[in-house]
Amino acid sequence: MITNSNEKFISYALNLAKKNLGQTAPNPLVGCVIVKNNIIISTGVTAKNGRPHAEKIAIDKVTDKKKLEGAEIYVTLEPCSHFGQTSPCVDEIIKYKFKKVVIAISDIDPRVNGEGIKKLRQAGIDVVCDVLKKEAKEINRGFFKAKTSKIPFITLKLATSLDGKIATKNFDSKWITNEKSRFFAHNLRAKNDAILVGANTVKQDDPSLDCRILGLEDFSPKRVIIASDLNFDLDLKIFKTAKEIPTIILTNSSKKIQIPYVEIILCAEKNGKVDLEDALKKLCEKGINSILVEGGKQLATQLLQENLVDELVWIRSKKIIGNDGLPAIGDLGFSALSEVLNNFERVENEEMDDDSIEIFRRN
Amino acid sequence: MITNSNEKFISYALNLAKKNLGQTAPNPLVGCVIVKNNIIISTGVTAKNGRPHAEKIAIDKVTDKKKLEGAEIYVTLEPCSHFGQTSPCVDEIIKYKFKKVVIAISDIDPRVNGEGIKKLRQAGIDVVCDVLKKEAKEINRGFFKAKTSKIPFITLKLATSLDGKIATKNFDSKWITNEKSRFFAHNLRAKNDAILVGANTVKQDDPSLDCRILGLEDFSPKRVIIASDLNFDLDLKIFKTAKEIPTIILTNSSKKIQIPYVEIILCAEKNGKVDLEDALKKLCEKGINSILVEGGKQLATQLLQENLVDELVWIRSKKIIGNDGLPAIGDLGFSALSEVLNNFERVENEEMDDDSIEIFRRN
Repeated sequence: MITNSNEKFISYALNLAKKNLGQTAPNPLVGCVIVKNNIIISTGVTAKNGRPHAEKIAIDKVTDKKKLEGAEIYVTLEPCSHFGQTSPCVDEIIKYKFKKVVIAISDIDPRVNGEGIKKLRQAGIDVVCDVLKKEAKEINRGFFKAKTSKIPFITLKLATSLDGKIATKNFDSKWITNEKSRFFAHNLRAKNDAILVGANTVKQDDPSLDCRILGLEDFSPKRVIIASDLNFDLDLKIFKTAKEIPTIILTNSSKKIQIPYVEIILCAEKNGKVDLEDALKKLCEKGINSILVEGGKQLATQLLQENLVDELVWIRSKKIIGNDGLPAIGDLGFSALSEVLNNFERVENEEMDDDSIEIFRRN
Repeated sequence: MITNSNEKFISYALNLAKKNLGQTAPNPLVGCVIVKNNIIISTGVTAKNGRPHAEKIAIDKVTDKKKLEGAEIYVTLEPCSHFGQTSPCVDEIIKYKFKKVVIAISDIDPRVNGEGIKKLRQAGIDVVCDVLKKEAKEINRGFFKAKTSKIPFITLKLATSLDGKIATKNFDSKWITNEKSRFFAHNLRAKNDAILVGANTVKQDDPSLDCRILGLEDFSPKRVIIASDLNFDLDLKIFKTAKEIPTIILTNSSKKIQIPYVEIILCAEKNGKVDLEDALKKLCEKGINSILVEGGKQLATQLLQENLVDELVWIRSKKIIGNDGLPAIGDLGFSALSEVLNNFERVENEEMDDDSIEIFRRN
């Protein structure tokens, strides 16, 4: 039975978890709350890179372990039951004689899936499942997508003028959107495991693609470039900071070029370009569950054409550039309206001062 | 002193007035409420084409004229004081011994401007001014704009895909936006004195440009076409219905061509095209105070370039057409972001099911 207090404490655990969004890949992000006599006595969130687990952190914080006897533990994901780098969380819960476990969503890792719940119930512990399941799935959307489809969760961010342009005809693009919107975009970076851009964007804009928000400097995700060739000027910012921030190039070029501190991964080729599906699979294999795509036009167009975008974030200023500006999305070749892309659902529409931010999800 | 009941009754009069939006040009739209002992005893709204005036209608409705003695009259615009086609409303108010007149905004017609107020006060009537002035100016924005600048109030409506296109490359445009949005757009038509389109739109889309909302069929505004030449196929819908709905062509072509029931007005030329400012002035002279511009690309672009757009209504669907589709706005020639159009302020942002409607006003 889902009671209000179950939802209350799971909701609290979900909110706690959010502080490490984008930091735990390839492991799922978990929030945990330990409650005794309706009072929270400890909390935990999966640490950076996924260890220790949230449950372990919360349990370890309670020095007098006797307090755990008869306590309740609220977790946003089914506790692990298998021996990995640490002993299973389920064993810890049984060992300290918790009386109740509330779980937001079952794990889909075949080593856990239902096993944790089974083991807890066999130990006589009251287990409640599926409390705020949808919200719990959402904070681990990358993890669940990667586990089921072997492709990371892809967010495409477009920052455009009112008429959908990303720069003037002379490539002037700094800045179309306002400061608050750019702050919002930096926050998106921190929430994803990697940032993906096309080679042209790197060459034309020379972005550093790091996370420059005060307090989030250490949250810069991996940077990934899709490039058909490896002809890069090594003075570009992204390469000069490759020692500090992990940087990957996905290419279909088999040329033996080395770039200091940059990992170059050979991908399959499709129409003379990098095969995007293969490239995304390779990133997934490397433990990247969620990707923020930041441009440019060609990459955005290809991802949309191949139906690889899970979430579209469209930040729009009220400036009007005109049709000679650079479009966010390239030619799609549709003749009839019945053919055009129409598989996104608006889930958010908010104003950021004079900009607007719309978020769409693929149906 | 502005009291709450003043605002309450003026607000009521403003709402009443709205039902005849777009119907009274070249005369202003006025709403009127007569109140006795805090009870509304009569109301009036300026009739179609501007006569009779709201005050006259409200007064005439009261058969027992003794009831008017000591009553209050709330009007959204200063009552007229000059003899036109009818006797001045101010004289009627004095004659029936109203004790108080509440006025939302002064008239700017030089024959009225302050004269009405002066005459009422001289007759010993308590006159309160500027109650909900901003709202009162808004419902007569066309009238005030036309009176001050000799150019009608221009609303540019764009109905586009998410990426700002008005059709596919093959001109398929039916329908990009949803049914509710199109209903909203028809309502916009009814609220304006005229609809303006470019010749290409007439030739390519063959629109009827009438008001097809149930109950608003009689509210179809005048239709105006901007055309550099007069080479039209007379089988186009707009010409076949010209007998029923007034239709005007503004052209810089001096060819002596006649189109049945269509008024052809010769305008000045600018860069081989119709001089838009001259064209709009000519419409203003004909008593058109507000215009809804419905396309196409060339007209929208020219109006934006010449800073002639007062209000921009952007209806956006979530369909993505791609850059080979037809843009809503053409080339504007800007090299630097500092030059681009940035003089609109978002005043509304609402969702119409899966479409969004943003309304901007020129700063």
